[in-house]
Amino acid sequence: MSNIPYKTYLDESEMPKQWYNLRSAMPNKPAPLVNPGTGQPMTAEELSGVFCEELVAQELDETTPYIDIPEEIRSFYKMYRPSPLVRAYCLEEKLQTPAKLYYKFEGNNTSGSHKLNSAIAQAYYAKKQGLKGVTTETGAGQWGTALSMACAYFELDCKVFMVKVSYEQKPFRREVMRTYGASVTPSPSMKTEVGKKILAQHPGTTGSLGCAISEAVEVAVTNEGYRYVLGSVLNQVLLHQSIIGLETEAALKKIGVKPDIIIGCAGGGSNLGGLIAPFMRDKINGDLDCRIIAVEPASCPSFTRGKFAYDFCDTGMICPLAKMYTLGSGFIPAPNHAGGLRFHGMSTTLSQLYHDGYMEAIAVPQTEVFEAATRFARTEGILPAPESSHAIKAAIDEALKCKETGEEKNIVFGLTGTGYFDLVAYQKYNDGIMDDYIPTDEDLEKGWAGLPNVE
Amino acid sequence: MSNIPYKTYLDESEMPKQWYNLRSAMPNKPAPLVNPGTGQPMTAEELSGVFCEELVAQELDETTPYIDIPEEIRSFYKMYRPSPLVRAYCLEEKLQTPAKLYYKFEGNNTSGSHKLNSAIAQAYYAKKQGLKGVTTETGAGQWGTALSMACAYFELDCKVFMVKVSYEQKPFRREVMRTYGASVTPSPSMKTEVGKKILAQHPGTTGSLGCAISEAVEVAVTNEGYRYVLGSVLNQVLLHQSIIGLETEAALKKIGVKPDIIIGCAGGGSNLGGLIAPFMRDKINGDLDCRIIAVEPASCPSFTRGKFAYDFCDTGMICPLAKMYTLGSGFIPAPNHAGGLRFHGMSTTLSQLYHDGYMEAIAVPQTEVFEAATRFARTEGILPAPESSHAIKAAIDEALKCKETGEEKNIVFGLTGTGYFDLVAYQKYNDGIMDDYIPTDEDLEKGWAGLPNVE
Repeated sequence: MSNIPYKTYLDESEMPKQWYNLRSAMPNKPAPLVNPGTGQPMTAEELSGVFCEELVAQELDETTPYIDIPEEIRSFYKMYRPSPLVRAYCLEEKLQTPAKLYYKFEGNNTSGSHKLNSAIAQAYYAKKQGLKGVTTETGAGQWGTALSMACAYFELDCKVFMVKVSYEQKPFRREVMRTYGASVTPSPSMKTEVGKKILAQHPGTTGSLGCAISEAVEVAVTNEGYRYVLGSVLNQVLLHQSIIGLETEAALKKIGVKPDIIIGCAGGGSNLGGLIAPFMRDKINGDLDCRIIAVEPASCPSFTRGKFAYDFCDTGMICPLAKMYTLGSGFIPAPNHAGGLRFHGMSTTLSQLYHDGYMEAIAVPQTEVFEAATRFARTEGILPAPESSHAIKAAIDEALKCKETGEEKNIVFGLTGTGYFDLVAYQKYNDGIMDDYIPTDEDLEKGWAGLPNVE
Repeated sequence: MSNIPYKTYLDESEMPKQWYNLRSAMPNKPAPLVNPGTGQPMTAEELSGVFCEELVAQELDETTPYIDIPEEIRSFYKMYRPSPLVRAYCLEEKLQTPAKLYYKFEGNNTSGSHKLNSAIAQAYYAKKQGLKGVTTETGAGQWGTALSMACAYFELDCKVFMVKVSYEQKPFRREVMRTYGASVTPSPSMKTEVGKKILAQHPGTTGSLGCAISEAVEVAVTNEGYRYVLGSVLNQVLLHQSIIGLETEAALKKIGVKPDIIIGCAGGGSNLGGLIAPFMRDKINGDLDCRIIAVEPASCPSFTRGKFAYDFCDTGMICPLAKMYTLGSGFIPAPNHAGGLRFHGMSTTLSQLYHDGYMEAIAVPQTEVFEAATRFARTEGILPAPESSHAIKAAIDEALKCKETGEEKNIVFGLTGTGYFDLVAYQKYNDGIMDDYIPTDEDLEKGWAGLPNVE
């Protein structure tokens, strides 16, 4: 065994004091958000009605490479960060691979995922702006949990609209949010105009993420002292999540390891964008020769089968348009698809990088993902989130290729979270009744039918 | 703020290579286990029919101070250990106390608690003995989960008898065990003679821990290549759990802190016995002036209201007799009591130490425990297990006393695990419908009615 430890922790003094803004290194910047009414790029003023001011500034800043992490956020980070970079010795042995596997584990906090990194930042700026509270939507519940934790810390009010079907099927997620003092409303609700309208049109609907977004935005813009916050997709979120990549970079340096392959799961792109940030910079600059792989579910394949086009970010079509790889805002993944990674689009930053050939993408079917998850749980002792398990699946496949070729590649992947609240999905897998729905070409054509006419 | 970090981690090279056997330091050794049939101390031979040989040796060894941790177990420990010693800066600030609060956090592994420390050791010795598998019972499910993880690692068969009411109410706990390859049977079952008997006598019963123990023991002794394992109470378990205290001792030394008060929750005693091991040694030897406090639920108050007497360890009265503080093997805590710490007795080692005046004990009501848990979750970002929250409650109370006196005491407590699978209890608390049943003197008299006639 090498002298690299199982877990590499940075000292608190080595923790990043700045986030890294990946856009600053990009030769082609991501296309701007566009106002669906005017067809023009969204201005700071327009965005400020919905988002906190400093977050709008971060959203629009594509040139500043490093942005200071405020002291208060760094204090909070110290409660659960630095997160460990783990050498997967046990998995390597089980696979009998010459490859070296490393994972950056973001699940050791009560939100159960990396989402807390951006939630605390967004809550901080809301507090600094003197707001009373924030609103958001949550589907699987990780983002809502992270945001409630952050709001409890800064004593901000937190209103979460939770897709009704999740609210009913995941009472424990809801209960964690309540324990942190958040109000959780099943969506659609009678609390908003848009909710009432939807309920009138579709009585008995169990809701959708798009509808929950609409309700959260409505409450933010119609209540004095509230703004809306979002857990993925946006540039500001990728900025905050760069803490993952910066810590990974520092830890790899500490143990003298150069990554050959970096792998992350991709839904809206928050984890992947954060993990790869400094490595992508080096790759763009020609300082690092490294493959970067996005892994998405075959049931919601934005990168691998999507169109690179302007589209709405929400099903309700009230948010700005973003140029991204998209399945169409009307696309809804199969209901039996477990966990997150259900967003129809993708971060504009990652979309541009993929379009420009800086990264690869693959799509994997659900059963194989849970097979990899179970294998990982049994050897590495961590029950992974279904989302994270997409990256595990790809990492295992790459490690097995190394077994054939004899290459000792360094493979680094993001383990974004734990699966403690996803056991209904694990149960389906254990019972052998999980299925692998893959959208047909017709499904995709339907999704694209609503694409707006913006170039 | 002081220069003590939020989290103190030992390097892997600093991790303990030996467990510490607290009995070796005790002036009065714990009374031996007694065969209920003969009234004589259990011999190694008698115990070996039920337990693995090396574990029997550890169980009976009261003189060897340090016992080597086998290399294979240390490798497994490295997957999730060393665990952090956390300075609770945020909680201190919220309480405005001059006290310094530290907690040793054992929840950062998929079993969600410290139980894994002993599960992996017991699985290792079973494997080493060439066994096919092990059997056990589980109530709340933490021990069963830990054991399934350990058995998956060593590819041992793992048969868990889960109290039927938990099996039905905690499907997620059950599912984690299945994911780790364990077979989980609701108890009482038709798989054992004792199960059939109980079902015939009490059709429709939802089971009890005592009954599950009986089934697990029967399967172990009637199946070639199987032994029974237990997650608390036993001396061997306290020995394995000493890793908690040894790491805590090393971390405190690293940051130059001497504990004034050490606090742990107490059910069967595995966490408390492990946490205090080296500190109790120093206290006995006169090298450390430090209060040691056991915290138990007011609904199951073995230390504070129990009798120090020989008693059965199980409700079914098939296990050896142990001299301990006990509420009687017939005592069953109120069904509305959340989480673990429901055992009617207490580790013989801790019982003797308490009897000899080396430690204090307090009992706390359930609602106050969840109040402390919620306060802790909102400031320290960790959703604690109900069991652990007993220690939190006591630590907060001691910190508030320091606020009155102005004393800057160093308070160390054990945070044994997370509450992700205890959200039904949190929900009761959030809904304001948790109650604080405390047994009457008559309840206790009833429990003692079955005490055996052994001195």
